[in-house]
Amino acid sequence: MIMKGNILNVFTDEIYPGEIKIENGIIQSIKEINSDFNEIIVPGFIDSHIHIESSMLTPSRFAEIALKHGTTSVVADPHEIANVMGIEGIEYMINDANASPLNYYFTAPSCVPSTKYETSGATLNSKNIDELLNRPEFVALGEMMNYMGVINKDKEVMAKLDIARKHKKPIDGHAPQLTGKALQAYVKQGITTCHESITKKEALEKRRLGMKIMIREGSENHSLEELLHCGAEFIVSDDITSEDLLKGHLDKCLREAVDLGMDPFDAIKLVTINPAEHYNLNTGSITPGKNADLVFIDNLNDFRVKRVIVNGNTIFKKQKLLFRANPKLLENKLDIIPKKPEEFNIKVQDPSHKSATVNVITAKDNQIITGTKTAKLTITKGIILPSIYEDILKISIVERYGGNTISNGFISGFGIKNGAMAASIAHDSHNIIVVGTNDKFMAQVTNKIIENKGGLAATSNHDSIDLSLPIAGLMSNKSAHNVAKVSSKMNEFVQNMGCQLTNPFSTLSFMASPVIPSVKITDKGLFDVNKNEFMNVIINEK
Amino acid sequence: MIMKGNILNVFTDEIYPGEIKIENGIIQSIKEINSDFNEIIVPGFIDSHIHIESSMLTPSRFAEIALKHGTTSVVADPHEIANVMGIEGIEYMINDANASPLNYYFTAPSCVPSTKYETSGATLNSKNIDELLNRPEFVALGEMMNYMGVINKDKEVMAKLDIARKHKKPIDGHAPQLTGKALQAYVKQGITTCHESITKKEALEKRRLGMKIMIREGSENHSLEELLHCGAEFIVSDDITSEDLLKGHLDKCLREAVDLGMDPFDAIKLVTINPAEHYNLNTGSITPGKNADLVFIDNLNDFRVKRVIVNGNTIFKKQKLLFRANPKLLENKLDIIPKKPEEFNIKVQDPSHKSATVNVITAKDNQIITGTKTAKLTITKGIILPSIYEDILKISIVERYGGNTISNGFISGFGIKNGAMAASIAHDSHNIIVVGTNDKFMAQVTNKIIENKGGLAATSNHDSIDLSLPIAGLMSNKSAHNVAKVSSKMNEFVQNMGCQLTNPFSTLSFMASPVIPSVKITDKGLFDVNKNEFMNVIINEK
Repeated sequence: MIMKGNILNVFTDEIYPGEIKIENGIIQSIKEINSDFNEIIVPGFIDSHIHIESSMLTPSRFAEIALKHGTTSVVADPHEIANVMGIEGIEYMINDANASPLNYYFTAPSCVPSTKYETSGATLNSKNIDELLNRPEFVALGEMMNYMGVINKDKEVMAKLDIARKHKKPIDGHAPQLTGKALQAYVKQGITTCHESITKKEALEKRRLGMKIMIREGSENHSLEELLHCGAEFIVSDDITSEDLLKGHLDKCLREAVDLGMDPFDAIKLVTINPAEHYNLNTGSITPGKNADLVFIDNLNDFRVKRVIVNGNTIFKKQKLLFRANPKLLENKLDIIPKKPEEFNIKVQDPSHKSATVNVITAKDNQIITGTKTAKLTITKGIILPSIYEDILKISIVERYGGNTISNGFISGFGIKNGAMAASIAHDSHNIIVVGTNDKFMAQVTNKIIENKGGLAATSNHDSIDLSLPIAGLMSNKSAHNVAKVSSKMNEFVQNMGCQLTNPFSTLSFMASPVIPSVKITDKGLFDVNKNEFMNVIINEK
Repeated sequence: MIMKGNILNVFTDEIYPGEIKIENGIIQSIKEINSDFNEIIVPGFIDSHIHIESSMLTPSRFAEIALKHGTTSVVADPHEIANVMGIEGIEYMINDANASPLNYYFTAPSCVPSTKYETSGATLNSKNIDELLNRPEFVALGEMMNYMGVINKDKEVMAKLDIARKHKKPIDGHAPQLTGKALQAYVKQGITTCHESITKKEALEKRRLGMKIMIREGSENHSLEELLHCGAEFIVSDDITSEDLLKGHLDKCLREAVDLGMDPFDAIKLVTINPAEHYNLNTGSITPGKNADLVFIDNLNDFRVKRVIVNGNTIFKKQKLLFRANPKLLENKLDIIPKKPEEFNIKVQDPSHKSATVNVITAKDNQIITGTKTAKLTITKGIILPSIYEDILKISIVERYGGNTISNGFISGFGIKNGAMAASIAHDSHNIIVVGTNDKFMAQVTNKIIENKGGLAATSNHDSIDLSLPIAGLMSNKSAHNVAKVSSKMNEFVQNMGCQLTNPFSTLSFMASPVIPSVKITDKGLFDVNKNEFMNVIINEK
C-alpha cells in the first residue's frame, strides 16, 4: 500500500511531499516526490497518560471517538477498575481494548489500593506487578501515587519500583504539590514523569530534577496554557469525560497549543515521538520500521483530522468511522445493604450541646486539589446539621466492598440547595461518594446506585435522575454519545439544584482521593493528605 | 559528603550555586545556596562509542588519561579483541575495566567476524550475544557493521537484532555512505544510531529516518565542524590513539564545539544526558538518584578540568590522579610460520607478459574510507612490480589465525619510498597488514611482528623500529605516555620514509575493513565493499 501526501518529519521539523510504502502494517520506506498535496500526514497521536474509566466508556467505546480525532495510541492506566476488581478488571480492559483498532498500551497500576487509608476492592502486590510488567502490552509502572510510601521507603512500594527497573520499564510519577526534599527523595527512586504540575514553578522544580513534565489537559484540569512554555514533553488527558471527548482529544490540544503561540512542530512532538520514545512504542514518527499510524490533517493551525490509518488500516475517512464497538458486559459485585438516613448522621458526644466547630473540605471548580476550612454548625437532637445558607453540605463515603460502613463529613463548594448526588466513581477506591443537603436524600441516591449495581444518581425534592454504570460501577457499555447525553443531563440536574461547579460529578469523584491534596474523605474518615494522617470532623462541641 | 559549586543543570540550561549531597556514591539531593564559586560542576562526560583497543591501551590504562579529562563513563565496544579472541578477550576487557574507577559499560560486538569476507580469530553467534546482553554492563548491541546482512535479512544477523529487542537494549548502527532504499531497509530493523556520517547531507538523511547522529571526533575522523549544527545527539571518539588522548578527550571536543559556535549547554548534553538516556545509564545529570559523577571545570569556554568525582569518589584533584593502573597480561596466540619474501609476490599467468593493469586501493589522509583507481605496472619475471615513483605500493594481509595464507594487492597514498610497515591491528579481523615498497622488507616487518607476538613494525633500508602489543596483538600493558612515545616515533619513522599520512599506522589499520567503503583488502582478497564482492587485483596482463 502506498499513501501520498505532505509528510511531516518530527525529527527534522520538515514537511515534504512524499510516498509512504506500507506492508503488514509497518512503514517500509518513504520516497520524496514532486507533487502538490492539500493534506499533511502526521504521525498518529498518542495520549500517554489516561484512565479510560473516567470517560465512563469502555476502551473500545472510547476508541470510537478518539480515533476520529487522530488518536492512534493510548497508554492507559487501568488503575480505577483495578481498585474495584483487580486483575479481573484489568483483563476486561485489555480484552475490550483489543477489540478496537486503536493501539492500547497499559501501565501496571502501582497503587491498588493507592494508600492504606481507604478500603478498595482489590490489592495488587509486587508479584502481580511483576506478572503484568512481564507482558509486552504493559509499557511502564503506573503512576506512583503513594509518594509518602516512596519517601518513607515502604517495603512493598520499593519492591514494585525494583520490579519496574528489572523489566527496564519507566516509572510514572504523581507528585502533586510535592516540593523540596520530599520531591527529591521521590525523584531519587527513578520516577521520571509527572502530570500533576499546575504551576510553572512546580514544573520547573521537577524539570530541574530531571522529571519529564506531562501537560495535563483533561476534563478536571487545564494546564496547557500555564505549562505551555515550560519544556514539557507530553500532553495527556489523565481523566476526560465523554462529553469533552466528543469535542476533541489531542487534536483539540494541538489546536489550542498553536493558538497559544506554540510552534506546531514542537506541539506535535508532545503527542507523537516524545511519548513513543519514552514508553518504547513502535510509533510516533513516519519512518521505516514504525507502525503505519498516520493522521491526515488540513493544516498546522486547525488540525482537522481528515483520515486516520492505524497499523496500515484506514479506520476513519470522509467523516466515516470504519469500526463499531460492541463491548461485553462484566458483572459488578455491589452486594451491599441499602442504607438508612440515620447512617448518614454526624452525631456529637453530648446531645445537649448546641453548636459544633467542624473541619470542612473546600472543593474548587475545575480542580481536584481541595482546601480546608472550619465552620460553626448547629446541633439538633445530638446531630450536626449542614448549613445550606453557607454552602456547608454533608459528604459521605459508603464502603462498597462488604464492610457496609459509612464515613461522614462536611464539604463546601457544591452549592446544592435541596437534594443530593452520589456516584460509585470516587478515586481511588471507588466506594460510593455522596454529597447532599440532608440525610434522607443522601440515603435515597445511595440506594439508587446500589439498585443499579453502580453508577451516578441525583435527587432533588421533586425529581431524580440516574445513570447506570454496570461495568465495575465505573463504565457503561453504551456509546459515548449515549453516556455523554445522560451525563450532561445529570450535571445540569445538579446545577439546577444550585451547584455551580462546571463538572459536578467529575469534581465529586476526586473528593475521596487520599493521594491528591489537601483534605479528602475516605471510608475510614476525614484525611489530611499533606500530613498523611486522619483528622477529626468535629473540632469541638458546646 | 557535600560538594559545593556552581551546578550546571542539563535539563533547564541553568547554572546556580548549590550543594550536592552524596551518599554511597549516589546524589541524594541538591540545595540551592547563596554563595560565590569559581568553578562549574558539570555531569561527568560520557564517550558513548569507543573501541578502547584503538588506543593500544588496556581499559584501565585508558582510564588513567580519560579521567583527567573529565570522562567518567564510557560505552566501549570490545569489537577488536572479540575478533581476535572472542569471549575470552571480552572478559579480559571487563576485568581490566573493573580495575579502574571509570564507569565502563559495554556493547555486545554484533559482527564477529564483521563479514564472511575475512578470517577472524573468533565467532560470536546469536547465543553468545544473548548471554552478553543478559549482563547489566552490556547496554546495547554493538554497531551492526554488516549492513548488507541486515538489508538481505541474513538469518544470524536477524537473530542478533531480535535478541537486542528482547533485552530492550538499543542497537547501534554503522552505515557509512548508506543511502536511499538500502539505508531505509537498514533503519527499518530498529537500528537507532550512526557514527559514520561525514557530511551534513548524510547526517540529515539519517536524521529524517529517526537515527540519532553521533558526531565522531576521533583520531581518524574529525566530523565535529561539519556535523556541528546537524541536530546530532552525541560526540564520540570511536577510535582514538594514545597520542591524541593525551591531548584531551571529550573536554577537548567541548572546547572545540563552543569555539565553532555551539551553545555550551547544547554541547554538554552531547556527552552527558543524551548518551545517559539513550543507553539507560544512571548518570549524565546532577540530579537525585544518579551516580555522583561530577566534573569541576573553570568555565564554559575552556572546559579545563579541575576535579573529577566518580561514584562519589574524588579521582582527580589539583592536577593529581588518585589512581594507578596495573593491567594484567594476556597471552596472545600468534602461532604462525615466519614468511618468505616470495609469499608476497603478485604473479601473472604468463611470465612473458610485460605489463599489467591492476586495481589499486587509494588511501586518503585522515579518512578510513578509501577510493579505487587502476594503474599500469611493469612485470618482471612473471611478477608485477610496484611503482614507487607513482606511489603504487604493495599491500598484503597475512592471515594470523593458523591459515598461514597471504593475500596481496596494490595501494596508493602511503608514499613510502624505500621500506615497509606492518601491524597486527587491521580492522576488523586483525590479521597482519603490511604495506611496502618490496617483498623483502614486507617479509621482514611481518616476521618482526610474529616474533613480538603482535604489534607494529617498520623497516627502511638502514633502520627498523617496532612496538610490541602482546595483548591480543592489539594492546600494550604499558602507560599511555609510554605507548604514545613509541607510537609517535614509529609514525615519524614511516613519515621519514616518505609517507605523508598524518597517522600512517592508524590509516593502515583500516585498509582491511570490509565494512567501510569503498575497496579494501582482506586475507581472502581484494574486496569491493559497495558491491559486497571480491574483485580481481589484476585486470589484464599483456
